[in-house]
Amino acid sequence: MKRAVVLLSGGLDSTTSLAIAQSSGYEVYALSFNYGQRHKNELDLARLNAEKYGAKKHLVIDFNMRDIGGSALTDDIEVPKNRDSVEDENTIPVTYVPARNTIFLSFALAWAETIEAEDIYIGVNAVDYSGYPDCRPEFIKAFEDMANLATKVSVEGTFNFKIQTPLIKLTKAEIIKKGHELGVDYSLTWSCYDPVNEHGNCKPCLQCDSCLLRAQGFEKAGMKDPQKL
Amino acid sequence: MKRAVVLLSGGLDSTTSLAIAQSSGYEVYALSFNYGQRHKNELDLARLNAEKYGAKKHLVIDFNMRDIGGSALTDDIEVPKNRDSVEDENTIPVTYVPARNTIFLSFALAWAETIEAEDIYIGVNAVDYSGYPDCRPEFIKAFEDMANLATKVSVEGTFNFKIQTPLIKLTKAEIIKKGHELGVDYSLTWSCYDPVNEHGNCKPCLQCDSCLLRAQGFEKAGMKDPQKL
Repeated sequence: MKRAVVLLSGGLDSTTSLAIAQSSGYEVYALSFNYGQRHKNELDLARLNAEKYGAKKHLVIDFNMRDIGGSALTDDIEVPKNRDSVEDENTIPVTYVPARNTIFLSFALAWAETIEAEDIYIGVNAVDYSGYPDCRPEFIKAFEDMANLATKVSVEGTFNFKIQTPLIKLTKAEIIKKGHELGVDYSLTWSCYDPVNEHGNCKPCLQCDSCLLRAQGFEKAGMKDPQKL
Repeated sequence: MKRAVVLLSGGLDSTTSLAIAQSSGYEVYALSFNYGQRHKNELDLARLNAEKYGAKKHLVIDFNMRDIGGSALTDDIEVPKNRDSVEDENTIPVTYVPARNTIFLSFALAWAETIEAEDIYIGVNAVDYSGYPDCRPEFIKAFEDMANLATKVSVEGTFNFKIQTPLIKLTKAEIIKKGHELGVDYSLTWSCYDPVNEHGNCKPCLQCDSCLLRAQGFEKAGMKDPQKL
């Protein structure tokens, strides 16, 4: 059985990517990060979904991006709300985390090499997204080229790593429909960048870019978002 | 004053690379990792040298490569001793750590973006080395290409990251001579992969690949290694 490392944040996209990898016949190794993000809800949901989709192992790597800073997701920078356009490629928002996908994919590469998985799944999307540079196909291609020069198994000629991006050209609505077909329970996914704490319950703000993209996606898919409000 | 992130392990090569960056007029930001390596001596020495060379900041990022495994430096795999040839490119030794330089450079890239440093120094060497794939010029070039597609500052057109590898084409003897000219105190650098604990003192084994390359380098440079035995 072919193995794949699947980057799993606990969000809508990565959970769909996990379902796609599993339904494509891979033995799945799920990889998450506790990197100093503002909230950890998504990690709990990542654990649930890794189990649901029969991941052989779910590894959570800890490191602190707060020491590096530079993002509203890890620093005391305000998360923008109710922006008119969340898809303007010329203004990458402050929720961008410096080199985050590069770091995530680098750890995935290390694990893939160790467990002999040729495929690495990442749920990046370059259609309904916030313009992050490390979600674009040209970045993914460059990372793949680099990966195949970086590692013992590729240089020895036995391996050819592939970065699988099943969502990259889909709209958010298409992603949701695809996940729905594969049985993804979107009430067990988390998108909000800046949740509100109401009487000890963590609730999505419904105003940040990620909440807005999610809402638009469900609307265009003609479906009701099952997330708890 | 131009800024540079300098990867600093506390070893002979990275300390020389730090001295070169500082003498080239950069404001230096030193970056080290506590990643589950077998011994931490090198981190203490990295701290000393970061201070000596006036680093503006020295950041140590913690993460655990032991969870990923696959190397004699992080696992319970024996470190090879007294190998006939430590420079055979066809047999990458078990001391190779999967994707280590990719991970290190990814964190360096994130920090460089945040502090607005265009240059990242790494003390890789592709002459007197153990054949690790992520020390070769083709890997460095591929990483640099990827980095310039990965980040907000490069995509917005203001930045062009450069991975500086001042040692890549030097022999170990040339590295030692260069460092000596720049005042590197090699008694404050650590090379051994598998130190011996003698009455609570940590001493180099003098038999692993890294010890052998170091000894050959000092011999060819016509100098005495000042490290404490």
